[in-house]
Amino acid sequence: MIYLDHAATSPMPTEVLKAFTDAAKNDFANPSSPHRFAKGVTKKIEKIKEEFLTALKAPAGFKFFFTSSATEANNQVLYNYLGKKKLLIFEGDHASITEIAKIWPESEIAFYNHDQIIESVTDDIGVIVLTHVNNQSGIILDIGSLTSEIKKKNPKIHIHVDCAQSLGKIEINLKKWKVDSIALSAHKIGGPVGIGAVVFDSFKKINPLFYGGGQQEGLRPSTLSYPLIAAFYAALKLKTTKLDINFDHTKKINLKIQQEFSQFHFPFAKTASPYILMMIIPEISSDILLRLLEEKEIYLSSTSACSSKVKGENIVFNAHKVPKAWHKNVLRISFSSETSQAEVGSFITNLQYILTDLNPLMKKKR
Amino acid sequence: MIYLDHAATSPMPTEVLKAFTDAAKNDFANPSSPHRFAKGVTKKIEKIKEEFLTALKAPAGFKFFFTSSATEANNQVLYNYLGKKKLLIFEGDHASITEIAKIWPESEIAFYNHDQIIESVTDDIGVIVLTHVNNQSGIILDIGSLTSEIKKKNPKIHIHVDCAQSLGKIEINLKKWKVDSIALSAHKIGGPVGIGAVVFDSFKKINPLFYGGGQQEGLRPSTLSYPLIAAFYAALKLKTTKLDINFDHTKKINLKIQQEFSQFHFPFAKTASPYILMMIIPEISSDILLRLLEEKEIYLSSTSACSSKVKGENIVFNAHKVPKAWHKNVLRISFSSETSQAEVGSFITNLQYILTDLNPLMKKKR
Repeated sequence: MIYLDHAATSPMPTEVLKAFTDAAKNDFANPSSPHRFAKGVTKKIEKIKEEFLTALKAPAGFKFFFTSSATEANNQVLYNYLGKKKLLIFEGDHASITEIAKIWPESEIAFYNHDQIIESVTDDIGVIVLTHVNNQSGIILDIGSLTSEIKKKNPKIHIHVDCAQSLGKIEINLKKWKVDSIALSAHKIGGPVGIGAVVFDSFKKINPLFYGGGQQEGLRPSTLSYPLIAAFYAALKLKTTKLDINFDHTKKINLKIQQEFSQFHFPFAKTASPYILMMIIPEISSDILLRLLEEKEIYLSSTSACSSKVKGENIVFNAHKVPKAWHKNVLRISFSSETSQAEVGSFITNLQYILTDLNPLMKKKR
Repeated sequence: MIYLDHAATSPMPTEVLKAFTDAAKNDFANPSSPHRFAKGVTKKIEKIKEEFLTALKAPAGFKFFFTSSATEANNQVLYNYLGKKKLLIFEGDHASITEIAKIWPESEIAFYNHDQIIESVTDDIGVIVLTHVNNQSGIILDIGSLTSEIKKKNPKIHIHVDCAQSLGKIEINLKKWKVDSIALSAHKIGGPVGIGAVVFDSFKKINPLFYGGGQQEGLRPSTLSYPLIAAFYAALKLKTTKLDINFDHTKKINLKIQQEFSQFHFPFAKTASPYILMMIIPEISSDILLRLLEEKEIYLSSTSACSSKVKGENIVFNAHKVPKAWHKNVLRISFSSETSQAEVGSFITNLQYILTDLNPLMKKKR
């Protein structure tokens, strides 16, 4: 199998799975229980929270709590302001942001580039969501420079950043960024599906999204899952200790595909994270290509997993100014630092075969 | 180690952990992705949802969706009615129910027994929460007979049942019960922490608690975690196929403790699930006993994990009419079907030693 759908979810490396099973076998106590076994687990969790804050270079005053996903994390931060402050988001953001905007009494949806983001920030905006790395195009925003300009225009604004696609891949530096909160996901970096986090400046109050046993200082109820937490942390360590090496490796395999298929289009390649490559083969529907590739056990996406159920025209592609005629021709190839040159080589060879086979069927427009 | 805190959380048996790791290794695709690998995972998840509905004897029209916990499940059902209908709950229920009642504009909190529940149901109540097995006392409610009487008095009421402590232990029969929704938890039966579910009559509309990529028919966003789901299902199968045998086994070990310590109090033993035994040793603070037991690597609780952080007088014990003088003397001993006679025997011996040692310190009131 050649798996190139890591932006949808990335499998757990052996070390991560081992962190899960070790925790499940040895530290299974409910951290809220009153005995020493439980308190030992609580201590380990608190230590991991500290390690996360350190890895994210969080200044003093920042707090960390686990959620079940980045989707829940985005929602919890935004719900704080629902009906109270005006929301500014950007087309092409993840559904967990755009869908909550739909129930918002006052919100604005703007287009996505550095200057237009700054321009859209007015006095009356109370909360803005930025996406560090877009999950379709892979476009990276320069959060540090954006926030300093945004806060100059509107010092009271809450800046929330969705880091689901950047954690462990592109540096997150909360000290430099000066944002108010971020959302994280474990399973995009080989952590388990079912855990995410919110990191926030405790100067801004975050309310719980729902209620229960008072876990995590009342911010997020439900029994904490130490196995999920230990595995999330193992994945983080694995990725952040080799951030630059991984980045370079991924850039290399990404460029290889661009070189081999230089006759096609890679509209965002120059400004995108190397972990996500959007490729447009104008004459062939991506549905057909996905079918032919999966015959060879090669798996990738056309749209993001979270937007693939939206019917008709693709609003994410619209937001990124992908011409409508191409919406059905987009492939999203996404990598992990574990993706090997050999796998990418085999993907290239197979796609070349498929395209040669299809050649007589294609309109000779190229 | 002797672990007798299974009502707080129960460790994953080998088979369950294997279901998790197998799924993580072989079926790690994001079920929402557009390729065949992902669709295979979706099919397995759909199959498991059907198996759950069958195990719960759900009539046609019932639907099933996964949440991150029973706490989230209880909240999601209740949020549907927040600010719209009057809520009736019972003191001594889990914090995920009692805490949401605190933000409810119109709610009533009643005391807990069959007749008082029926009596508390008036025309103006829109939603009632029943707890199949209380997480502290272990008291079992006869849901089938309650619901028929409740619906006779108020046919439009939504009856929600928290089954976190009963799934896999006491029969849940949705066909007989005629309830509108139930909440489930995986980790109380040796499934992983981090997954629960709502089962509901689709005749009643349930709204999402938060928004995202449209997973699970829009009812609960976030990437579905097949490893968590597969492990939850493995735990369910393990427990439900031997429900009666497990019940009898647990009753036997539970009774053994009652016999050996017949000089103390077991106020709910007659009406409680055998999986939870509340024991009151009047002269000795449970804190001291927990400390002395943990020296011997024996772990149990005084209160439930979810209420152990509430300071001062225990409202759950109040609700169950445990005399105030005894609130600091309550031990909650909770079992799994895997708890062996040998473990319970060793617990008994150790507790007897401890009590003998403490004897000169105790007031001679017994």
